[in-house]
Amino acid sequence: MIKSEDHFLEIVDAVFPNVHEHMLVGRGDDCAVLQCPEKVCLTSDLFVENVHFRLSYFSPADVGYKALAVNLSDLAANGARPLGFNLNLIWPSGLDSVFCRQMLEGMAGLAKDYDLALSGGDLSFGPCLALCVTIWGESPARNLLRRASSSGDVLFAAGEVGMARCGLMVLEKEPDPGRYPDCVARHLRPRPLVKQGLALAGTQKVKGLMDVSDGLARDLPRFLGPGAGIELEGSLPVHEEVADYCTRTGQDPVHFCLLGGEDYALLGACAPRDWALLQRAFPGLWKLGIAGSTPGIIYQGTRLDLKGFDHFQG
Amino acid sequence: MIKSEDHFLEIVDAVFPNVHEHMLVGRGDDCAVLQCPEKVCLTSDLFVENVHFRLSYFSPADVGYKALAVNLSDLAANGARPLGFNLNLIWPSGLDSVFCRQMLEGMAGLAKDYDLALSGGDLSFGPCLALCVTIWGESPARNLLRRASSSGDVLFAAGEVGMARCGLMVLEKEPDPGRYPDCVARHLRPRPLVKQGLALAGTQKVKGLMDVSDGLARDLPRFLGPGAGIELEGSLPVHEEVADYCTRTGQDPVHFCLLGGEDYALLGACAPRDWALLQRAFPGLWKLGIAGSTPGIIYQGTRLDLKGFDHFQG
Repeated sequence: MIKSEDHFLEIVDAVFPNVHEHMLVGRGDDCAVLQCPEKVCLTSDLFVENVHFRLSYFSPADVGYKALAVNLSDLAANGARPLGFNLNLIWPSGLDSVFCRQMLEGMAGLAKDYDLALSGGDLSFGPCLALCVTIWGESPARNLLRRASSSGDVLFAAGEVGMARCGLMVLEKEPDPGRYPDCVARHLRPRPLVKQGLALAGTQKVKGLMDVSDGLARDLPRFLGPGAGIELEGSLPVHEEVADYCTRTGQDPVHFCLLGGEDYALLGACAPRDWALLQRAFPGLWKLGIAGSTPGIIYQGTRLDLKGFDHFQG
Repeated sequence: MIKSEDHFLEIVDAVFPNVHEHMLVGRGDDCAVLQCPEKVCLTSDLFVENVHFRLSYFSPADVGYKALAVNLSDLAANGARPLGFNLNLIWPSGLDSVFCRQMLEGMAGLAKDYDLALSGGDLSFGPCLALCVTIWGESPARNLLRRASSSGDVLFAAGEVGMARCGLMVLEKEPDPGRYPDCVARHLRPRPLVKQGLALAGTQKVKGLMDVSDGLARDLPRFLGPGAGIELEGSLPVHEEVADYCTRTGQDPVHFCLLGGEDYALLGACAPRDWALLQRAFPGLWKLGIAGSTPGIIYQGTRLDLKGFDHFQG
């Protein structure tokens, strides 16, 4: 049992340090006072039980980890350096203080990897567990934005796509998810590509960047903007577990990967003349295709009709 | 019905401008990019259906208004100038786009009063309506903090206490809440004392400040810190509606007011020699009592035993 708000705050203070070089006044007052860079990147994400995660297969530490990881990915997609975050927590009556501590430890482990301050937050009872993280960081000199590519540009990605979707599917439906350890791990503990985002922002060659949270099918049009599309290359990399799952379930692996969100891959663009250089500088990048002026995603001469995840359309 | 996330974002964009002098990149990318003052105040508050508000007597616009107002109050309590906020929204299936628009308009009206940017946020389905606002603003040169008073200091307040509690009681229990219009209005639409906080931070005489969100009984010890207490003056101002309600329900009006949170009054301290000066400069201030070295709240020679609101103790 969590006995009181003070008891909850004791757990928070035991898990998260309350000093940080960018925090002049920490938690415990009406607001935190931050020593900020002149340009700050700010973003928020919700992480809600039975919408974004299930307690039947997320450990408490996984919940805390992933709620923060998805926010880190949004900063990575701008090329920003994360500095700290606020955590707002809706807490249902059925969870105890052990769960709370493990969840916060999962979050604190990831926060420590990036030396992040927990700069405040709030707590309320509610009907389900929900975490809302608002993260702040130092902006790069040149922000990497969406809708910055033009026709003929190379569209590329860092990180895999499709694995987290495969992990979700097997966690939801398979009697033996242990057959897909990499995909399960990717769904439970996605790796935000913070270093890659920082490094890509450090070159002048990258024209834009975003993170793939809802699947390429949905996020590519957002990245390209209206009146633009992409002709995919044939070589979309498919992880062997994803290939195995698609074979067993009779699905096209390319379509499957295009629909897959939550891998938190980064999607970027560059001029064709810069692609070889970028690829040498960042060996993990892979070419997705070429931007064109026909809206949609063209694959093997056909316009694909795929829909990614929408909270109002399921 | 809200048809899609894009439909929701259309409503947001129709209600909130996406340009602001402190917002270099606005909503619609992976993160906002803010042009920040060197010292930033940051704070978050949750506003959850059936915990902080009920839809049976909050209009949609009241919900949006109050979710932002409580955050403004936290900045006011530091003496900060609000600049913008992120809104994270958990949305239940039963509410429609008319509700959404009215709620956002209630919030946008208050945001416009203070020229605030809506700098981002997130949306998720969930089992109840919940709003999480994280607000950022310009820090004053000298932050007004808790635990800054010492024995002998005058403790004072700006704004009333007890009215919002009376409003809540009559909205929950009375067949005719219209008998208490001021108190009902205070519960539904509390006025954050932003200008007062800014002005108080502008003097050198104020030793500390906080906002009274959980009631003086709970917030006074937080303000004073351990090993300190207060001897109350006899003259706690009681609004006539509160006095009437206490008479009818057989309650001590002073106890009632000390338990009353959510008025978002400001609680401050100053040296005794500065009180007369402060009172002349800020006619709305009233003296609560004198800080002492005996923990607790002493009233008419007796130590009061009152408990304010705690999410884990009801």
